[in-house]
Amino acid sequence: MVDQRALPHELVVVEYADYRQVVTAIRDMVVRGAPAIGVSAAMGLALAALQSKAQDKPTLLRDLESAANELRASRPTAVNLGWALDRMLRRARQDGGDESLTSADDVRAALVAEAQAMADEDVAANKRMGTNGAALIRDGDTIIHHCNTGGLAAVDYGTALGVVRCAHEQGKRIHVFLDETRPRLQGARLSAWELSQWGIPFTLIADGAAGHFLRQGRINLVLFGADRIARNGDVANKVGSYMLATVAHENGVPVYSVAPTSTVDLSLAEGDAIPIEERDPREVTEIGGVRIAPEGAHAANPAFDVTPHRYLTGIVTENGIAYPPFDVSLPRLVNLQ
Amino acid sequence: MVDQRALPHELVVVEYADYRQVVTAIRDMVVRGAPAIGVSAAMGLALAALQSKAQDKPTLLRDLESAANELRASRPTAVNLGWALDRMLRRARQDGGDESLTSADDVRAALVAEAQAMADEDVAANKRMGTNGAALIRDGDTIIHHCNTGGLAAVDYGTALGVVRCAHEQGKRIHVFLDETRPRLQGARLSAWELSQWGIPFTLIADGAAGHFLRQGRINLVLFGADRIARNGDVANKVGSYMLATVAHENGVPVYSVAPTSTVDLSLAEGDAIPIEERDPREVTEIGGVRIAPEGAHAANPAFDVTPHRYLTGIVTENGIAYPPFDVSLPRLVNLQ
Repeated sequence: MVDQRALPHELVVVEYADYRQVVTAIRDMVVRGAPAIGVSAAMGLALAALQSKAQDKPTLLRDLESAANELRASRPTAVNLGWALDRMLRRARQDGGDESLTSADDVRAALVAEAQAMADEDVAANKRMGTNGAALIRDGDTIIHHCNTGGLAAVDYGTALGVVRCAHEQGKRIHVFLDETRPRLQGARLSAWELSQWGIPFTLIADGAAGHFLRQGRINLVLFGADRIARNGDVANKVGSYMLATVAHENGVPVYSVAPTSTVDLSLAEGDAIPIEERDPREVTEIGGVRIAPEGAHAANPAFDVTPHRYLTGIVTENGIAYPPFDVSLPRLVNLQ
Repeated sequence: MVDQRALPHELVVVEYADYRQVVTAIRDMVVRGAPAIGVSAAMGLALAALQSKAQDKPTLLRDLESAANELRASRPTAVNLGWALDRMLRRARQDGGDESLTSADDVRAALVAEAQAMADEDVAANKRMGTNGAALIRDGDTIIHHCNTGGLAAVDYGTALGVVRCAHEQGKRIHVFLDETRPRLQGARLSAWELSQWGIPFTLIADGAAGHFLRQGRINLVLFGADRIARNGDVANKVGSYMLATVAHENGVPVYSVAPTSTVDLSLAEGDAIPIEERDPREVTEIGGVRIAPEGAHAANPAFDVTPHRYLTGIVTENGIAYPPFDVSLPRLVNLQ
């Protein structure tokens, strides 16, 4: 995987052979972005299968469950992590009724293939999301985006920034305002780097400046990703998304969350039930290892917030765009084949 | 003056004998905060009077007008700068009908005294603002604050943080959430330092996290300063204030701007007429001289935004609290003796 902490200054590719390294990489945000950490966890579980010394299938399943628990605990908010691990475990246990996996090695091979299939499906889903979402973008539009949802946040292509990329590939002339996205600066570091690569013009701004440009009528559309979407359409996403969506809504600017259906958690009735990760306060009190706040300053660092569904115009998925009432439209899209 | 760029790491006091150094200090934000730059400009003009070689009063007045133009151009948004210079020039010209200043030296002495009087009046006004605003704070309240409005932003005591300080001095147990306030981090660097000095407990957060805590019902009150207030109550303040006020309003949390009546510009009917300073984009692309965005990344850096009056519960001044309709209440408070 690309070590996203080194960008935009260096493009460092790391390889892991131990699933525990994948646990650490997810927790320390070597890899981030809901779809990317989902597939990374699946790959991690495939590694765990290869690492296990188990000679028989029941022993291997026990090792896999233990590794899956470690991977699952690496970050709490993005549902894709649990979704990917559950799918891998179902494959290993043959919950689908498939009885062909008789040996431990059968399971190992099946899990490697399953993780690779999930990576391929992610790219395909992102491209469908891109096409679905690009229909919302007109030639000449100015879009604002929060955090990073490009190829780095997924296996490739991206979700919300995949929509931007698709519109650009369709020849639409667009401009993108990028929230820098404190505290970890994914917008300034990662989205700015990706848009530079793609040749899409952008303007980087402090997160607090988004309102100024929205109120001036200089922005037509808000796009961001999602880490978990409740059944009613409430969206947990990178902290700051809620303020952006609220102020856009106040200014009559449409707001779309872009995410694969694997991000929808139909088991949660509403967003307040989504666990919000609290990260190290030093992400706020320090920047790049340099202390900005006085010694001893107390800081809080919620990594996500919840945007209530009433501020969302729609939710773009690979199966189409969900519109309110989301508790009707989302289950329909999730259950589409 | 305190060099605010060195805080919280170092407390550096600088002394200037040349008004051109004061121009540079205001432009480069050695000193910042609307009341502080107003009095700094007045002191700068007193220095210009002392520096002038003029032997007669008409020559001195020409030198003063030239220096005032340079000081006035140092920053465009805060109206206190122009207000302070106009008051100094009126004093020099004896627009009040006072005919006692006959020589250049009479004018010099009068301007030094006038600048000192303005410094003293600023502190007295801040303490009255503190008392007026502290009546809004109950024991146990949690307040959120944007940018820095403490003693550093004024001659002493502060405006919005002066209100917080006064409530604390009254023995009310309060907690303050501090927006770090990108791009220049006045919250993380200056407000955190001042609240530490005063012994007021606080939690530093990324600007985008304010919405999360507001939505959770953990904040009772929003307080920030102002750089210019239009007749209708629209408030220009540090960029990000508008998003904070909008989201607080959506959550039913009262929002007050705290500023001396010298910040009210009755000549402007509404906030859209307030000039918004655009600062160096490197304040966004770099932090502490370290580049965070890719080379060549384009950034925009509006230093202020305008909060429409409908999001404000009230405006706290040294003469009392203005409530809607502000175009009635503000002129009344401004014209109070």
